[in-house]
Amino acid sequence: MPTSEQDFLSVIDRHFPNRGERVLLGRGDDCAIIAPAAARSGTAQNAASFCVSTDMFVEGVHFRRSYFAPADIGHKALAAAASDLAGMGAEPLGFALSLMLPEDISDDELDQMLAGMAELSLRLDMPLIGGDLSRGPALALDVVAFGQAGPSGRLLRRCQAKPGDSLLLVGEIGLARAGLLELECKGCCETDTWPAAIHAHLRPEPRIAEGLALAQILTPEGPAVSGLMDVSDGLARDLPRFLGPVGADLCLDGDDLHPEVAAFFSARGQDPVEAAILGGEDYALLACASPQRLPMVLAVLPQARVIGTVSAAPGVRLNSGAVLRQGFDHFAKPEDGC
Amino acid sequence: MPTSEQDFLSVIDRHFPNRGERVLLGRGDDCAIIAPAAARSGTAQNAASFCVSTDMFVEGVHFRRSYFAPADIGHKALAAAASDLAGMGAEPLGFALSLMLPEDISDDELDQMLAGMAELSLRLDMPLIGGDLSRGPALALDVVAFGQAGPSGRLLRRCQAKPGDSLLLVGEIGLARAGLLELECKGCCETDTWPAAIHAHLRPEPRIAEGLALAQILTPEGPAVSGLMDVSDGLARDLPRFLGPVGADLCLDGDDLHPEVAAFFSARGQDPVEAAILGGEDYALLACASPQRLPMVLAVLPQARVIGTVSAAPGVRLNSGAVLRQGFDHFAKPEDGC
Repeated sequence: MPTSEQDFLSVIDRHFPNRGERVLLGRGDDCAIIAPAAARSGTAQNAASFCVSTDMFVEGVHFRRSYFAPADIGHKALAAAASDLAGMGAEPLGFALSLMLPEDISDDELDQMLAGMAELSLRLDMPLIGGDLSRGPALALDVVAFGQAGPSGRLLRRCQAKPGDSLLLVGEIGLARAGLLELECKGCCETDTWPAAIHAHLRPEPRIAEGLALAQILTPEGPAVSGLMDVSDGLARDLPRFLGPVGADLCLDGDDLHPEVAAFFSARGQDPVEAAILGGEDYALLACASPQRLPMVLAVLPQARVIGTVSAAPGVRLNSGAVLRQGFDHFAKPEDGC
Repeated sequence: MPTSEQDFLSVIDRHFPNRGERVLLGRGDDCAIIAPAAARSGTAQNAASFCVSTDMFVEGVHFRRSYFAPADIGHKALAAAASDLAGMGAEPLGFALSLMLPEDISDDELDQMLAGMAELSLRLDMPLIGGDLSRGPALALDVVAFGQAGPSGRLLRRCQAKPGDSLLLVGEIGLARAGLLELECKGCCETDTWPAAIHAHLRPEPRIAEGLALAQILTPEGPAVSGLMDVSDGLARDLPRFLGPVGADLCLDGDDLHPEVAAFFSARGQDPVEAAILGGEDYALLACASPQRLPMVLAVLPQARVIGTVSAAPGVRLNSGAVLRQGFDHFAKPEDGC
């Protein structure tokens, strides 16, 4: 079998062309963008198209029932899929759920899992529109999220960054990774150390409002934010996907990190900044804007932090050094927590 | 855990409202119909909306690798999802694939599986637009099919039948069930008896062209076909879903069945008509039309067969008796093949 997601995608690309008259944006971004016929023939193409993303959440790969409460499982499965909509600056339309249930799941567990999912669904105004159900050897949830452009009619893509653009981050990096490592080490959720880290791993919040806001900011010269994606596999892995052919100089120190990230990795004798960049399941947003448009972005979203500058030279340099390690690949086996 | 799909759907309905301003048709039909904002505000609502359906295909539940060639697995996973589009009279837009791969799948198996899927994808003009990938304890494929209305702008729903309407069937019933029983009994695909039945089980063909054709037929009084669905869980289970509050008198004898269905079940000492109605995974289409419009439907689709009449009295009667048994529930354990 393929040993990495990249290997697998090469196999997919060999069999399936990544285009078609109805496919405005194919595989390789946070979402695909599809245009029904009426949207293709109309003038407001983006406004009548929809975007879609799928996200699998599999027991033993993405979560363990030993430390995820059932409601956490339901919440996180939907949150991860919704975060892909946030990464396009899209507004949720709804979602479909395919659920594989093992023999040993109880009525109560199922009920609480669906309640956790329903709570987020209601809050995001993202109704469940369908799905499928099967028995199976493990608990697995496949969530398909649908979205559409907000009032501006714009959906934001990857690979739009130009040399000189500022790189912006909305949300924490490394926090969910600290939570994962702590939970894997302790093997249960009854730990009261690192509460923010554990919450970030069990109950990530998709940044729908922030993504939508970023896609709506218009300057006299055009949209203020030119590119956007969600950081779900770690900045080290996702940043090159965001940049495409260009590179970046990152400027990050301990002050840019959540206090628990700095303390957690320091206590393990690891460099907190490097650990945060390795990250994984951050569900933060990464955006780029030209220096002229940056002030407007920061005025609308003051919580966005400038973490670097896009460079014509390829590769990513951290504080003038080089980022070597790659981030989180769900296809690879998880590392040991302790 | 819930013991039937119906139990499970009740749990879902308790947690998730089945409506929303963007949801033109919610859970409970072959597909949901979703309208992006531009479609909601426009006049040609159906033309700018899209329909979506998901279908899980899980090793040990829906297929076995002992008698499904890898290409059959890829083909059938996509065919089953596409059949839900056929059941709305929709035209395919594309599909997403979430794939759970076990450790023991080889590069060759994966390659052939994707080749089988790609062949059907190309033939249906239904591009792969995205998906997700995970390791997992079994091979599982979750296919999300997207479609749109054809040139007429119409998508056909269930629960539209009126007393006096003719019930029409396009495709064979019971044939795939005979194939399943034969394959489960023999445990491998190297059997040359019942070739049509085995082909129907391993390589079902979604009736996209027929569904689309049925949705386009217009008489001076309006659309000729008022309701449509795909028969995937057996006629005995799907017909009540199609009828809703009304009933039906079915007229079916051995001549209405594929010769292999009649011979296979007769050889097992079973009533072929009853076995065919129990069916499962037929991927046939069930439609209704008023007697006045029936000739036009049969002129366009001469392979459609009239199998009964809709009645005001609820319940389904077979050749003036009663249909008691229910069809195939993927949630239940499969019966023994021999």
